[in-house]
Amino acid sequence: MKILSGGVCAVPAVKAYGIKENRQGLAVITGKGNTVGVFTLNKIRAAPVIATSRRLPGIMNAVVAYGGSANAFTGKKGIQDAERMALLVASALGIDPESVGIASTGIIGRPINMDWIEDHVGNVLSGLTSDPSGSEAATRAIMTTDTILKQMAVEIDGVHIGGIAKGSGMIEPNMATMLSFIYTDVEMPTESLQKCLRESVDKSFNMLVVDGDTSTNDMVLLTATGDKRISEERFQEGLDFVCMQLAKMMARDGEGSTKFIEACIRGARSKDDARKAAKAVVRSPLVKAAVFGEDPNWGRIIAAIGRSGAEVKEGKITLEFSDGTKTVTIVKEGNILDSGKKAKEVMAGDELIIIADLGLGKHEATAWGCDLTHDYVQINSAYMT
Amino acid sequence: MKILSGGVCAVPAVKAYGIKENRQGLAVITGKGNTVGVFTLNKIRAAPVIATSRRLPGIMNAVVAYGGSANAFTGKKGIQDAERMALLVASALGIDPESVGIASTGIIGRPINMDWIEDHVGNVLSGLTSDPSGSEAATRAIMTTDTILKQMAVEIDGVHIGGIAKGSGMIEPNMATMLSFIYTDVEMPTESLQKCLRESVDKSFNMLVVDGDTSTNDMVLLTATGDKRISEERFQEGLDFVCMQLAKMMARDGEGSTKFIEACIRGARSKDDARKAAKAVVRSPLVKAAVFGEDPNWGRIIAAIGRSGAEVKEGKITLEFSDGTKTVTIVKEGNILDSGKKAKEVMAGDELIIIADLGLGKHEATAWGCDLTHDYVQINSAYMT
Repeated sequence: MKILSGGVCAVPAVKAYGIKENRQGLAVITGKGNTVGVFTLNKIRAAPVIATSRRLPGIMNAVVAYGGSANAFTGKKGIQDAERMALLVASALGIDPESVGIASTGIIGRPINMDWIEDHVGNVLSGLTSDPSGSEAATRAIMTTDTILKQMAVEIDGVHIGGIAKGSGMIEPNMATMLSFIYTDVEMPTESLQKCLRESVDKSFNMLVVDGDTSTNDMVLLTATGDKRISEERFQEGLDFVCMQLAKMMARDGEGSTKFIEACIRGARSKDDARKAAKAVVRSPLVKAAVFGEDPNWGRIIAAIGRSGAEVKEGKITLEFSDGTKTVTIVKEGNILDSGKKAKEVMAGDELIIIADLGLGKHEATAWGCDLTHDYVQINSAYMT
Repeated sequence: MKILSGGVCAVPAVKAYGIKENRQGLAVITGKGNTVGVFTLNKIRAAPVIATSRRLPGIMNAVVAYGGSANAFTGKKGIQDAERMALLVASALGIDPESVGIASTGIIGRPINMDWIEDHVGNVLSGLTSDPSGSEAATRAIMTTDTILKQMAVEIDGVHIGGIAKGSGMIEPNMATMLSFIYTDVEMPTESLQKCLRESVDKSFNMLVVDGDTSTNDMVLLTATGDKRISEERFQEGLDFVCMQLAKMMARDGEGSTKFIEACIRGARSKDDARKAAKAVVRSPLVKAAVFGEDPNWGRIIAAIGRSGAEVKEGKITLEFSDGTKTVTIVKEGNILDSGKKAKEVMAGDELIIIADLGLGKHEATAWGCDLTHDYVQINSAYMT
């Protein structure tokens, strides 16, 4: 597997472009192929989620995404606006509007600015390019509180997989205000594509917690444009990598964050236990605040695991902190070691890996998150006004 | 029903006292009677939770509580220390150590300071008094990050019910680092007492979210010392009131909080839906941060309800904000009203009541919480060091 630059444009025949103007942005990606999607589990579903999920699975030609408002809780007008976005793109490109996916992100309960979109869609379409700059422009167009450009592409056994994403807040287990568009030139039956996407999303975006809120607008689309063949296992490997890298970028870019947190649970009695415990650690505001302050208050991690629902036994737990190079053992099979200073040192970096071995089985899982900071409060206490 | 002062000491024959010295404190309450308890659901249970729950239900003479460390994740030594606390009190008072409940609160993974306890238990016991000052001293002794003294007592049909509590962080649905000791002079079968306590806890402490973390040490004890008779309904009413008032005090005292939040869900399809939705609103960091910033970003409330698991229909939701006197309608049966300025005005007070009518049924529930502030981050990023 080889890492490529260029995001979605690393995949042959895929073009992208986007325009950003103050707090609004519009992105279009084109690439014809069999498309599957995974959507938010929030029962309030944004109009573009409703409109796009209705189209899938199916052959799609393009995706259009608006950053500025969520077009959620906008009733019938919201659906009309979403459909209008698809129509604008389809008319200009001479394709079926039913083959255009729609996405949006921003404040809930506000209609999208159709005038602005109508004014700018022409420029976006005329900018479409297979050059890496196109993928970057598209990614940048849908950034809201994002500060990092999130793109990833790989080549595996001759197959290309490339994706872009946005997301930095309202991010919880079952996705987030996160949008991700992934393209590949593989040829694969729809059911296999859908299965692979679900599995990758479960290992990546669904193991990500920034603040425990799940958005109304989450969407991950995967379009297979080509005719390349590869084993399902190898494709899964490549797709997992792309999704996990994008997910980690989101954790690193968590609103106001200064530190990236990875929680690895090992030795769990079941897969589900491992996942629950890992997510409980990165979700805990007390753990997140302690990581921000480089305060080795590890008891909060134990408490988070204890309330996660996972099976735990006090005398079996081993807990380690690592900064990626140095590792410090805090608790060894239930015994508290004197690790104070060393633990604090390991917390000083911009990345903390928390490894908890529950000592009860063979299952493991990893979740990602970030610290809770003054800036998170600042960003989210004055977002709308 | 009449509100009384004096906390637990409002109940005849109950005595209390406590001593606080820097970051440590010790409280003792005496009052003989049938005792029931409700304990944390965290699978990592602190030693005093293990030791006390083993004793209940049963006739208890006293409770001893230590503030300074949690005595959680402290293995066999933790249990020995907890039992030693009971023994110290029992020897001095000439009672059975099995009739003494034990509680503690503070940092997880640190043994309690038995030397300090042995040095101070004599003074606490000699200070025991049925004067209201005793209840206040006991409450103060177990305060950690608490800033408000939490006491409540009522008289209902001649029966007294009085309680004290501590708790301001690590507070989530199924209790918290919260301790509450409640006394009453009612006479009632153990099963009825247990049933009433569970029901009150479900309506009060279990509807409280400060930060979504559940402690290893939570405990609510109810001791019935007397021989007064009352209908179970009326007793429930009084106990509900005491527990709800104590729970609201905890929400008001949430770590770093500047505003109290009450979420009332009405018109839910089921009781469970109403509870889930109410708790999701007060748990959402995005809602909490918006309340702090007086930012009427109400879409976050809709999103929180949508992801709570409760049944919702966009076109049925009515949303109102109230500061206790003025009420502003934000959404009326799915239609967004132009409420911008008025909504912001209503958010300016130190209390925000969020009322969401789901329009689907007759069930309702109320949850309490507080805003997410810079001070919460500050307090919890440097708690241990």
